Amino acid sequence: MGKIILTGDRPTGRLHVGHYVGSLKRRVELQNSGAFDEIYIMIADAQALTDNADNPEKVRQNIIEVALDYLSVGLDPAKSTLFIQSQVEALTELTFYYMNLVTVSRLQRNPTVKSEIQMRNFETSIPVGFFTYPISQAADITAFKATTVPVGEDQEPMIEQTREIVRKFNSVYGEALVEPEILLPDNAACLRLPGIDGKAKMSKSLGNCIYLSDTEEDVKKKVMSMYTDPDHLKVSDPGKVEGNPVFIYLDAFCKDELFAEYLPDYTCLDEMKAHYQRGGLGDVKVKKFLNRVLQEELAPIRARRKEWEQKIPEVYEILHTGSEKARATANATLADVKRCMRINYFDDLELIQSQSEKFKEE
Amino acid sequence: MGKIILTGDRPTGRLHVGHYVGSLKRRVELQNSGAFDEIYIMIADAQALTDNADNPEKVRQNIIEVALDYLSVGLDPAKSTLFIQSQVEALTELTFYYMNLVTVSRLQRNPTVKSEIQMRNFETSIPVGFFTYPISQAADITAFKATTVPVGEDQEPMIEQTREIVRKFNSVYGEALVEPEILLPDNAACLRLPGIDGKAKMSKSLGNCIYLSDTEEDVKKKVMSMYTDPDHLKVSDPGKVEGNPVFIYLDAFCKDELFAEYLPDYTCLDEMKAHYQRGGLGDVKVKKFLNRVLQEELAPIRARRKEWEQKIPEVYEILHTGSEKARATANATLADVKRCMRINYFDDLELIQSQSEKFKEE
Repeated sequence: MGKIILTGDRPTGRLHVGHYVGSLKRRVELQNSGAFDEIYIMIADAQALTDNADNPEKVRQNIIEVALDYLSVGLDPAKSTLFIQSQVEALTELTFYYMNLVTVSRLQRNPTVKSEIQMRNFETSIPVGFFTYPISQAADITAFKATTVPVGEDQEPMIEQTREIVRKFNSVYGEALVEPEILLPDNAACLRLPGIDGKAKMSKSLGNCIYLSDTEEDVKKKVMSMYTDPDHLKVSDPGKVEGNPVFIYLDAFCKDELFAEYLPDYTCLDEMKAHYQRGGLGDVKVKKFLNRVLQEELAPIRARRKEWEQKIPEVYEILHTGSEKARATANATLADVKRCMRINYFDDLELIQSQSEKFKEE
Repeated sequence: MGKIILTGDRPTGRLHVGHYVGSLKRRVELQNSGAFDEIYIMIADAQALTDNADNPEKVRQNIIEVALDYLSVGLDPAKSTLFIQSQVEALTELTFYYMNLVTVSRLQRNPTVKSEIQMRNFETSIPVGFFTYPISQAADITAFKATTVPVGEDQEPMIEQTREIVRKFNSVYGEALVEPEILLPDNAACLRLPGIDGKAKMSKSLGNCIYLSDTEEDVKKKVMSMYTDPDHLKVSDPGKVEGNPVFIYLDAFCKDELFAEYLPDYTCLDEMKAHYQRGGLGDVKVKKFLNRVLQEELAPIRARRKEWEQKIPEVYEILHTGSEKARATANATLADVKRCMRINYFDDLELIQSQSEKFKEE
């Protein structure tokens, strides 16, 4: 059995540097590691519709943004299958049958669903599609017989739900499905970047994100306006680096060799942090350096995006080809599933034969 | 727009005389009335699996029983499309998208779901598929653009749920779906036959059903053992006809012209009831007459069933052909639905064109 990755993103907006350090960068490394036999990257439009049913146009317009971000960071259609969830019909059919294997109270206990419901103010009126999306995710993962799902720690309950469905299906109907493993980020700093306003999460609606597609000027403006240590009033004051977004971003992006080029006062990030903590290092100087560091990482991404933006039909063609491949894989799994459930009646000669005999005897 | 019927049964057992007077007989009349352009009769195996996930074999073995019952009562594949739900994949995809248009609390308020959950002792652990089956039913009905759903009064909340989904879909995404009407039975006596033990409902597990496929001897034995008025101890005692299963069955099955042939003491059912009520008419005599009445109705059904039982592969072929036709219809509706939702990206040249221009301008 091969090693297979399934992962993806909801197309509800352009991807930002939080996505980049939290998942995209790692995804490209995994892609290029050669350690995986197949990699499926899904643009989860159907999942995005579960809480955007009234605004399908938002989802529709953002598919291309996410695809451009994928290609820009280095996801390579020759190595990874990029596809759109809604174009793989078998996923909905798997979801339908898995729904019989999960109880309502089990879904209600899912902590990820609980917290997302809270975040979206759904308390009294959760769409059924949103409530059941852990089951839909299990369909996405198992359709590709994924062994490996590279996601953040907060997604662990979702993967556990998938494993439960796999075990239940395999024990009731026969071994058709593969239990996936979660692959956690290897760098603690990458778990979650705060917003530039210091809020715990980057969010489009808060306007506190740095996007992969932001211009050089936008990135600079956003970095220079970043929230830092509110008690660090004068340059000479001691400053805090813990919980300070500027240093969290540096933890995620800075490589020590960049100091030689952009800020030779220090040889490594620890030296710089020490100076900030004892006082005498101003926020502006730190932010200017962070801007250099970020631009270093984002410039080639931005350049590749500009190229792809001139070739939109080609991007759709990549998604189309990927979706066709994903559809073939998912259809093969679905056929296995239906064979195990024995609901492939018209192909089941043994069924027709045995029933013919039974009625003749009577 | 044509007049289209969608209806069906869960294949969890053979059909009984309760099904016959409650729906099958009417269904055959509607079929032969010529008033409908299309009639779809669904064997709802996927719905049966929502609360039989652990026992798929029961569902699998009963599909043929329901199909034989259908053909025996006079459903005619030349006039009605007989098909198996699970073979029409589009139904699961419609269900998936409709789930975004219904809230969890709306489902919880559905009285039919509430009472069925109670009946099945699901209180603490309802399978998600069972909980959401009103949405799946909406998919079944709308996939065929059904205008007319002939079901009992107890199904009214299900049809209302479908209508709500249709209205919501059409207002959010555009007019693709048709609002169905419920067609209630025209005969109050046919609403629900009690079991032969006097319990309100016939149920396989209670062993109180008379099946359409029962032999002549079985039917007689069951009729002669029927529960009647428990206070009618001696023939001379006055008896009650209200709530007395024997008379409820006679209400449903007896035609006055049968008295001349089988019981010339009376000219009509009302006369017989009057005699029973004033005393002097024994249960055995009434039951013998009911047996004759039932045999009169069931004999041709039983004979047709015997014929079809010798042609099982042909019955599967009828279901196969019907399922192919149903699939084509449902796929056409699904294509409409996806076009309205605008998730048919690769066919959407306007989308690709407009985005190409947008990025070139930037």
